[in-house]
Amino acid sequence: MLGWDQETYMPREAAELRGNQLAMISGLHHRRQAATEFRDLIGAADDENADAAPDSVVAANLREARRDYELATKVPAALVEEKARTTTLARRAWAEGREANDFARFCPWFEKIIDIARRMADALGYDEHPYDALLDKYEQGATTAQLQQLFAPLRDAHVDLVARIQDSGRPVDASCLRGAFPADQQDAFAREVTKAIGFDYDRGRLDTTVHPFCMGVGPTDVRLTTRYDPSFFGDGLFSALHEAGHGMYEQGVRRDDFGLPSGQSCSLGIHESQSRLWENLVGRSRGFWTHFYGTAQKRFASLSGVSLDDFLRAINEVRPSFIRVDADEVTYNLHVFLRFELELALISGDLAVADLPDAWNEKFEQSFRLRPPNDAKGCLQDIHWSAGLFGYFPTYTLGNVYAAQIYNKARAELGDLEAAFARGEFTPLRSWLNREIHERGRQYLPHRLVEKVTGAVPQPQPLIDQLESKYGAVYGL
Amino acid sequence: MLGWDQETYMPREAAELRGNQLAMISGLHHRRQAATEFRDLIGAADDENADAAPDSVVAANLREARRDYELATKVPAALVEEKARTTTLARRAWAEGREANDFARFCPWFEKIIDIARRMADALGYDEHPYDALLDKYEQGATTAQLQQLFAPLRDAHVDLVARIQDSGRPVDASCLRGAFPADQQDAFAREVTKAIGFDYDRGRLDTTVHPFCMGVGPTDVRLTTRYDPSFFGDGLFSALHEAGHGMYEQGVRRDDFGLPSGQSCSLGIHESQSRLWENLVGRSRGFWTHFYGTAQKRFASLSGVSLDDFLRAINEVRPSFIRVDADEVTYNLHVFLRFELELALISGDLAVADLPDAWNEKFEQSFRLRPPNDAKGCLQDIHWSAGLFGYFPTYTLGNVYAAQIYNKARAELGDLEAAFARGEFTPLRSWLNREIHERGRQYLPHRLVEKVTGAVPQPQPLIDQLESKYGAVYGL
Repeated sequence: MLGWDQETYMPREAAELRGNQLAMISGLHHRRQAATEFRDLIGAADDENADAAPDSVVAANLREARRDYELATKVPAALVEEKARTTTLARRAWAEGREANDFARFCPWFEKIIDIARRMADALGYDEHPYDALLDKYEQGATTAQLQQLFAPLRDAHVDLVARIQDSGRPVDASCLRGAFPADQQDAFAREVTKAIGFDYDRGRLDTTVHPFCMGVGPTDVRLTTRYDPSFFGDGLFSALHEAGHGMYEQGVRRDDFGLPSGQSCSLGIHESQSRLWENLVGRSRGFWTHFYGTAQKRFASLSGVSLDDFLRAINEVRPSFIRVDADEVTYNLHVFLRFELELALISGDLAVADLPDAWNEKFEQSFRLRPPNDAKGCLQDIHWSAGLFGYFPTYTLGNVYAAQIYNKARAELGDLEAAFARGEFTPLRSWLNREIHERGRQYLPHRLVEKVTGAVPQPQPLIDQLESKYGAVYGL
Repeated sequence: MLGWDQETYMPREAAELRGNQLAMISGLHHRRQAATEFRDLIGAADDENADAAPDSVVAANLREARRDYELATKVPAALVEEKARTTTLARRAWAEGREANDFARFCPWFEKIIDIARRMADALGYDEHPYDALLDKYEQGATTAQLQQLFAPLRDAHVDLVARIQDSGRPVDASCLRGAFPADQQDAFAREVTKAIGFDYDRGRLDTTVHPFCMGVGPTDVRLTTRYDPSFFGDGLFSALHEAGHGMYEQGVRRDDFGLPSGQSCSLGIHESQSRLWENLVGRSRGFWTHFYGTAQKRFASLSGVSLDDFLRAINEVRPSFIRVDADEVTYNLHVFLRFELELALISGDLAVADLPDAWNEKFEQSFRLRPPNDAKGCLQDIHWSAGLFGYFPTYTLGNVYAAQIYNKARAELGDLEAAFARGEFTPLRSWLNREIHERGRQYLPHRLVEKVTGAVPQPQPLIDQLESKYGAVYGL
């Protein structure tokens, strides 16, 4: 709640007070999470439930409670504090460095952060690669080796697809998305659409912020945010759809299990699969817009002379660019592969921090056939590294991988989904996701959950097929 | 923050979750407030500061910290729980009773609540009257005897003034306040006005709710609410001014003393003196409207043909009515005297709960020359008693008493305030209140603070003089 308010309605000068409040609440939470009393209670519950089936909800709750306790206690308090102190200062150095386009200002801080990340990995423990320990925090059970195996063919397929798109000679004209799109109309439309797909406004809200996010206070209180550019249609609604995908997950967990792992979301990657599925697989589909395009045209005069075909091509334009957060559905993953490879090299020591800008630019050019003009549009663009987040970026693409696989399965079970969307029917898909994903909470690790739902462990081909099929049509490949 | 959000932006179905969150936070707070460790720390600090002057900030902080500890520990936990349980159910019975206009539904619950209040008074301790113990919670140091002495002449003067107003043969025509007053224009105007008088929007907000309130999260984060009736001008702005008066107090405490008694507001009565001063003594004055009326006329076409004189008479109409929260500046106090007398009789046992409706109606008629048509417009109108709040109502009129006295002193020191308002100058008054009242926090008990600021203990005459002078002019008495 404090975090949500900070991004939405908090008065400007309340920042310091809010920082103190957040620190105090986090401290209270951490002390309980890391209490030996909590460990002993888990131990006692383990004894009482020794004969529970390994896949049962009670066994999963105990397994995950123990994991949470271990994550809270494995890293020495001194290292946690060192990280908090260092990242606070590093964040400032990063912001200044990005502003001044000067990597040198951030470089010494980033060296400290890499060093801290390695010591964190040591404290958390790992079998093969220190990066495994960092990754596991966000995507439990995922390993560097797994990701490398998954991402290598994906990267090749993406580079190849983007090259064929660029060489297709059929560039998309997306100018119809620019024009007069009043913010209040965009907001009304975003509410109408997110409500129609199943986000429950009696248990949630939508507000505007600089950076869209979704925050689940609990299954009866889920808060989305988006932003509206009154001269551009391509961002506000799709951010709202993306966050509503997260939001329906948060609203879809088992309410009676609130506070237990079985009432929580499974992982960052699974979470991202829900947002990407609704944003891209549903929200950029022909079926979806067959239903909504008439309303959109009524709301926005700028779209009145634009055919559904031209509109669909516009919202599915692929265009390599420097900034990850502005990227389209295809090139987005290329941004992630780049960061994953660089993170690995930095953590393992194969790449020195001082050499990061050159390494970034070189690898970027290999994937995008573009060279960043400066570090602000290159290795300084994201806040993540200044905050000490390593292993986080891969979960974005894992979300796309899972989404493609899950969506295939939904289609196999529910029939022609796009025909249903065209009739305004979104409940079958949402209910299926509720049952198959949301209500399972943290009962299975993400890898296993995907297997349980789709019958196969996460793999590259469904995503490749989905992108080939869609963009083959858009660009006549 | 949770309480503010509950009244403003919380999704409808989040109520149960929010109740659990609030209960948990209150519990954490109470356990710290009532910890023997806290008591021992106060004791140790007492020893270290044994030679501090009794009126010094450090001595006051220790005195008030001990008071807070004692308030948190004097009442046995079982009684606190009994009260919480009983009032939760009583509140429902009260709401149903008010809805159905049936006192009998609330009566057995109110008997329990009176019994609990008496046991609370015994636990808290008192010298003369059990009501002293209840009063002291809200207005430290105030006693029943003091209030009786203060209120008796006030009541007579009010009854007399209202009678002369009603018999003046010069009724006010307030119809100009009814008409088209679009909510967005009222909101813009309320922001402009509250900003002009000194509420700092970098350290606060204004939102809309059903019941206006002010909540100080801290001096850098103060949140006001009001409400707008698009067909009536007489409520939204004045509620906003009232809450801004509270808000400027919350913003005006010493920021460096945040969390200490010296950085907190003095009492409910002193708080109310600030809201009433800005709402009534400033916000309904000729000087104030000499400055703002032109803007108001520009915003609201409904006021375009209305002279300043007629507008001033309209916003200062005195009209006896049944409902306290709708009452004007003069009759409001009559509502308070009535409740004070009845509370005393109920707590002392002189009045049986079953006899309350008759007693209410009889006393009401003596003061207002009107008889409530039913209990919903009589003794069931306020939520306070169902929540077990006794000793709270008198602080509203204490606020008016203090405000008149404080305002006189400000005028004596700062010169012709209304002439300053007419020039749009509100900073001298606000700064003076900051220095004389707000920055003193809880250094002095309320009675003593008034004496310190004005040179005299709280007394009835300044309020009587202020009302006589103003309403003498309005009604040509």
